[in-house]
Amino acid sequence: MKKVNRLLVTGAAGTIGGLIRDGVSEFAEILRLSDIADLGEARPGEEIMPCDLTDADAVHKLVSGCDAILHFGGISTENRADLIHKVNIEGTYSLYEAARKEGVKRILFASSNHVIGFHKRETRLTASSPIRPDGNYGVSKAYGEALARLYWDKYGIETLIVRIGSCFPAPKDRRMMATWMSAGDMVRLIGRMIDTPRLGCPIVYGVSDNAESWWDNSETDYLGWRPQDSSAQFAGLFDDVPQEDPTDPAVIWQGGMFAKAGHFDD
Amino acid sequence: MKKVNRLLVTGAAGTIGGLIRDGVSEFAEILRLSDIADLGEARPGEEIMPCDLTDADAVHKLVSGCDAILHFGGISTENRADLIHKVNIEGTYSLYEAARKEGVKRILFASSNHVIGFHKRETRLTASSPIRPDGNYGVSKAYGEALARLYWDKYGIETLIVRIGSCFPAPKDRRMMATWMSAGDMVRLIGRMIDTPRLGCPIVYGVSDNAESWWDNSETDYLGWRPQDSSAQFAGLFDDVPQEDPTDPAVIWQGGMFAKAGHFDD
Amino acid sequence: MKKVNRLLVTGAAGTIGGLIRDGVSEFAEILRLSDIADLGEARPGEEIMPCDLTDADAVHKLVSGCDAILHFGGISTENRADLIHKVNIEGTYSLYEAARKEGVKRILFASSNHVIGFHKRETRLTASSPIRPDGNYGVSKAYGEALARLYWDKYGIETLIVRIGSCFPAPKDRRMMATWMSAGDMVRLIGRMIDTPRLGCPIVYGVSDNAESWWDNSETDYLGWRPQDSSAQFAGLFDDVPQEDPTDPAVIWQGGMFAKAGHFDD
Amino acid sequence: MKKVNRLLVTGAAGTIGGLIRDGVSEFAEILRLSDIADLGEARPGEEIMPCDLTDADAVHKLVSGCDAILHFGGISTENRADLIHKVNIEGTYSLYEAARKEGVKRILFASSNHVIGFHKRETRLTASSPIRPDGNYGVSKAYGEALARLYWDKYGIETLIVRIGSCFPAPKDRRMMATWMSAGDMVRLIGRMIDTPRLGCPIVYGVSDNAESWWDNSETDYLGWRPQDSSAQFAGLFDDVPQEDPTDPAVIWQGGMFAKAGHFDD
Amino acid sequence: MKKVNRLLVTGAAGTIGGLIRDGVSEFAEILRLSDIADLGEARPGEEIMPCDLTDADAVHKLVSGCDAILHFGGISTENRADLIHKVNIEGTYSLYEAARKEGVKRILFASSNHVIGFHKRETRLTASSPIRPDGNYGVSKAYGEALARLYWDKYGIETLIVRIGSCFPAPKDRRMMATWMSAGDMVRLIGRMIDTPRLGCPIVYGVSDNAESWWDNSETDYLGWRPQDSSAQFAGLFDDVPQEDPTDPAVIWQGGMFAKAGHFDD
Amino acid sequence: MKKVNRLLVTGAAGTIGGLIRDGVSEFAEILRLSDIADLGEARPGEEIMPCDLTDADAVHKLVSGCDAILHFGGISTENRADLIHKVNIEGTYSLYEAARKEGVKRILFASSNHVIGFHKRETRLTASSPIRPDGNYGVSKAYGEALARLYWDKYGIETLIVRIGSCFPAPKDRRMMATWMSAGDMVRLIGRMIDTPRLGCPIVYGVSDNAESWWDNSETDYLGWRPQDSSAQFAGLFDDVPQEDPTDPAVIWQGGMFAKAGHFDD
Repeated sequence: MKKVNRLLVTGAAGTIGGLIRDGVSEFAEILRLSDIADLGEARPGEEIMPCDLTDADAVHKLVSGCDAILHFGGISTENRADLIHKVNIEGTYSLYEAARKEGVKRILFASSNHVIGFHKRETRLTASSPIRPDGNYGVSKAYGEALARLYWDKYGIETLIVRIGSCFPAPKDRRMMATWMSAGDMVRLIGRMIDTPRLGCPIVYGVSDNAESWWDNSETDYLGWRPQDSSAQFAGLFDDVPQEDPTDPAVIWQGGMFAKAGHFDD
Repeated sequence: MKKVNRLLVTGAAGTIGGLIRDGVSEFAEILRLSDIADLGEARPGEEIMPCDLTDADAVHKLVSGCDAILHFGGISTENRADLIHKVNIEGTYSLYEAARKEGVKRILFASSNHVIGFHKRETRLTASSPIRPDGNYGVSKAYGEALARLYWDKYGIETLIVRIGSCFPAPKDRRMMATWMSAGDMVRLIGRMIDTPRLGCPIVYGVSDNAESWWDNSETDYLGWRPQDSSAQFAGLFDDVPQEDPTDPAVIWQGGMFAKAGHFDD
Repeated sequence: MKKVNRLLVTGAAGTIGGLIRDGVSEFAEILRLSDIADLGEARPGEEIMPCDLTDADAVHKLVSGCDAILHFGGISTENRADLIHKVNIEGTYSLYEAARKEGVKRILFASSNHVIGFHKRETRLTASSPIRPDGNYGVSKAYGEALARLYWDKYGIETLIVRIGSCFPAPKDRRMMATWMSAGDMVRLIGRMIDTPRLGCPIVYGVSDNAESWWDNSETDYLGWRPQDSSAQFAGLFDDVPQEDPTDPAVIWQGGMFAKAGHFDD
Repeated sequence: MKKVNRLLVTGAAGTIGGLIRDGVSEFAEILRLSDIADLGEARPGEEIMPCDLTDADAVHKLVSGCDAILHFGGISTENRADLIHKVNIEGTYSLYEAARKEGVKRILFASSNHVIGFHKRETRLTASSPIRPDGNYGVSKAYGEALARLYWDKYGIETLIVRIGSCFPAPKDRRMMATWMSAGDMVRLIGRMIDTPRLGCPIVYGVSDNAESWWDNSETDYLGWRPQDSSAQFAGLFDDVPQEDPTDPAVIWQGGMFAKAGHFDD
Repeated sequence: MKKVNRLLVTGAAGTIGGLIRDGVSEFAEILRLSDIADLGEARPGEEIMPCDLTDADAVHKLVSGCDAILHFGGISTENRADLIHKVNIEGTYSLYEAARKEGVKRILFASSNHVIGFHKRETRLTASSPIRPDGNYGVSKAYGEALARLYWDKYGIETLIVRIGSCFPAPKDRRMMATWMSAGDMVRLIGRMIDTPRLGCPIVYGVSDNAESWWDNSETDYLGWRPQDSSAQFAGLFDDVPQEDPTDPAVIWQGGMFAKAGHFDD
Repeated sequence: MKKVNRLLVTGAAGTIGGLIRDGVSEFAEILRLSDIADLGEARPGEEIMPCDLTDADAVHKLVSGCDAILHFGGISTENRADLIHKVNIEGTYSLYEAARKEGVKRILFASSNHVIGFHKRETRLTASSPIRPDGNYGVSKAYGEALARLYWDKYGIETLIVRIGSCFPAPKDRRMMATWMSAGDMVRLIGRMIDTPRLGCPIVYGVSDNAESWWDNSETDYLGWRPQDSSAQFAGLFDDVPQEDPTDPAVIWQGGMFAKAGHFDD
């Protein structure tokens, strides 16, 4: 298994950051963990480097000396557009510019299923399906995906774009029986991103091998990632939850409550 | 696992009706079994309600008070067109009208591979493949599929359209090594139809996970149905049967003998 | 230009029958015109032969001696299901059976845009697009299309399936600016049906070369039919009609009022 | 021809703004022209309303009282990312928010071929082709397209997304023989946007009927727009220009010099 | 209009060679005409250079000093496999090798509709349709197309692959109403091959704008070639020819008599 | 399991020939092994019949009396074009002609991934993907595939076309982790070729169920072949090999070194 020297993880204090912290440590000599929130003390093989993604200079310093980046940082749910623009758009741009200037050639961009949340559940999606964001957050991820593609086509920087479903210890509602991604499957996907000879700029749906499935990753089988977990282990978890109404917008659309909700500020 | 109150099964005295009778009992408080043929005595949790599908008023009464319908009733093989029109077309229409008037919102429509029987075996089919019926029976199933779609688009009644391959205890000839569907897989599919939050109006090929496979159900993976049986358990069953001729129409076409046969009445 | 000996036109007293009566007379030595309604006196080269399509024997006699059939007969708008079943399903079946027994090898089947009326206007359709009928009438046309295909695959009878848009002297509302088909284009299409060496069983959208267009006939360019008229000649015809609401179901769906309307009997 | 009461044109002092100013005046009682640059004096039927798109309150006032918007404003070529973020991302967001709050239901969003500039010339694109921006400018247009789609799916605001090729009085180089769009064709396209009963949220390539063609608009033929001009009228214009090298990145990629150029700031 | 210095035409004494000889003279300062058959005297601007394509050294000399090649040479109809291998396979290989060594960067390869002759007439083909040769001749053209693609992918030599329909002064039978290509359209296509900044390695069906059409060239609209002639000018030419049987293999398959014929030597 | 009487294996002394020799012996009463190289002594159930594929008469004798052919013979790597033409083109033609004359109805044609080697690794291929050979060898396999198709369409001879990845005892480099095919999977595929009622002329990628995967065989699931081995058993085999450069042509293209290499003779 390939190991890079220094691997940067942004958003390391977030849910996913916490879930993968141990697993990804084997992919690098040094794990540089960064967040605006507290990350506690560095463990062996880690270095902690707090950073505000809206500070382009700080981002540049953060990226300097790294060999690959797992960019989980930023706002990860619906929010005010001005905040999302500042963090998810300008911050992501700063990170890619820093990578370009510092010669970092491989990045994981944490995109989201909310970039396609306005497709119906009955629609099977691939990496080529049209963008259908379900809120400001989803639109900012569409920006990030387009930016990642530009940096590949123009500057040869490879990005693994992961449209993450629901990466939590367990599904939190019935919808997540379809969208759940285990920490183990995320770590294995990151392993393939590090190890594969040629990454390119693929769009991968970040989801485990759940029985209910809306997304088809076969276009990117060249990565050699095969999810090994399934939400089937949580069968029955929502048996006591009242039946869902098939005409409820949160049930119709893949984005669930994000698609159903009105404008964030209203 | 979700349970409806009263689940109607038409054609309950037929082959499939018999194969699933036990399995589907867990999906409902009361199983209302109906057929024109004798169904014996009701077991606990069952109610027997004989019905001739060509009697619209009787069908209306049959449907009244039910929460979901498994519509296996009707003529299930090639036959005279006038009979097929009477039972499979007018009868199916009566059933959908009854469901509309009685507020039943979920139906399984037993369609058939004979609705696409004039595709070649080498052609891999999906739910979107063009209709190619192989006889009067197949044409009547094309009618039923179109009707089901109308009732979804116009009235919001969800139908699981199942293009059943060969649902028997075991394959009866070599062709069925490819088309066989186990009773268990059928029951599990019905379970998903009952349990899924949003069914829509999918077309699913009713077939187990056989090695030889002509049909691709990936478009409807959102249902979360994964067949668990395979005709591989019957390997060698037809070793003593003489070789088949690849230029025999019954071997060329997916519909087998249905496609090869001339007109029913001739 | 090829000429057949005797060409049967069913539904000859209907709107389309009247519009094409002169034009198609050049395609046959004898035009056999049939309807349940009065057709007036036969002109030179015509023979009038009244027929009720629900009388299978009469249909058999009607078809006997003909070389090709233009099947415009039947109910051509939404109606009670029992009538539609009787005329459009049983009647169409009788006609195909008569053709099979009498050796008639080429038929035009007048299908309708209402077989796909539950697609949105923004959806560009081809002959391969999924069936989405917008009423009982549309479902009966789905039956007819499936039947025509069966008679081609099994018996070698060629059918030109025409999903007619709106074949009138002029568009009657704004929607028809997109769906209008001129009589001249219909006659030319029939000419190609008669003349082409190999017809097969194509599905053609019957529509002139209108600027607004929902349907793509390029899959059947082998027929050599190119519409020459356009609704542009009627520009301004609906300027005084109040604006349409883009959220009105009659504007959303291609089927227009058919898709918006509730059940015929309600 | 339909006429709205007040039609807002942003970027009215730009090249395209100038080219269409006369033509679009027939689509509205009042033309509200806006730009940060000087627009001269209002002509009859016009009102001039200067506005800086980075001022959200000013944008809100600008939009208030309008019935439709032609949004040509913003930075229309490659530039510094911070400027592009400010104007094309935040400014576009402000405009859509203003439209949502003020009940404006129809918008033209001036996107660009630079949103797909990293496709090769030999690749024929449709509205469904993957996004391949060729610079910061193109990425900002990807943001705008995603935003427009969100406002359609969530709020019912219809947008005509136009991926403009090269809208100038005449082609300026050989590449523009393929990408040129005449002012007349742009005006006619805007006319269709105003007049069509249901616009939806289509992506249209803004290009005339040039012989050399990379883009296929047939998916949006429902709009009824047919370009009437062609760059053929400029045949021979570049005969004296030296031959182009087929291995030059500016010739390989549809984005031309945008795709070839390095990073704006470098 | 771009002009190359020396343009080589192989097979110049053949039917197509004769039809285009005048037309292509404007694309080059010097036209080098070659054939194994007699070409008569050179006209102004021409040079005659006889060559046997099976002589690799002679081919090398022939190609030397040329700037582009129109490779119409070789066996152009069904024949013995050994001859076809010698001329169409080894000869074509020699020509491409000579071009590679001599730095010729643009070639027209005269392929044929017989490379796809075993598709049915009802099947609309594009450049991406599967290869279905109808004889030894067609197989040799499949070889040539594959070779041309190799020389593009590996050595950057651009080839215009033309699957020629029937390039004659006039159609010779009914089938050619669909497959006919005028000399003028061929010359204009060659003009685009010479003039286009980037040719790549497109597959173009060589056919005029006939009403009956089996082939879709829209994938290669980037070339800017639009056929201007049509077989419609020959309407009625085959009125006295007996009707064709739609079940005749020569009518079923696009390759016509080539597909119907047995093996050449039998 | 079906058994033929006499099964011919050409190229039996080659790597694949050796790997499958035992396994395929159960598919035939007599295994006729042929090669130009020494095959040692015949084991029970075998007959050795040396043959030079460039000798058409010898090939005819070789084929005579056989019931099916596994055609692994010929040049199996890049080489001089004249040799490849002689063996892979003329030799393959001789073999198909012999099969036609001797009534052999089923052939395995050993094609190669080098027939599509100029696709990028990120491109998922199916049997319908365009031909992109990466050398003379690949072009000769394109010829063979076209020839096989001709003999199916015209003469009813069924061929299993196998685009073999890397059939060795173990992967030899990192690329082969994606392209490796086990001997067991090859034998099972041959078993399906012998046993299936209708083979047709499918194109199958010969590759095991490796995690890294570029090729999608789902179009030919009707064969009932499911690879059971995986290169995962060799995980870690190349850990000590230096990292690969994603911009190295041998890493970009599926053909690896074949695509990177210059012309064989240069």
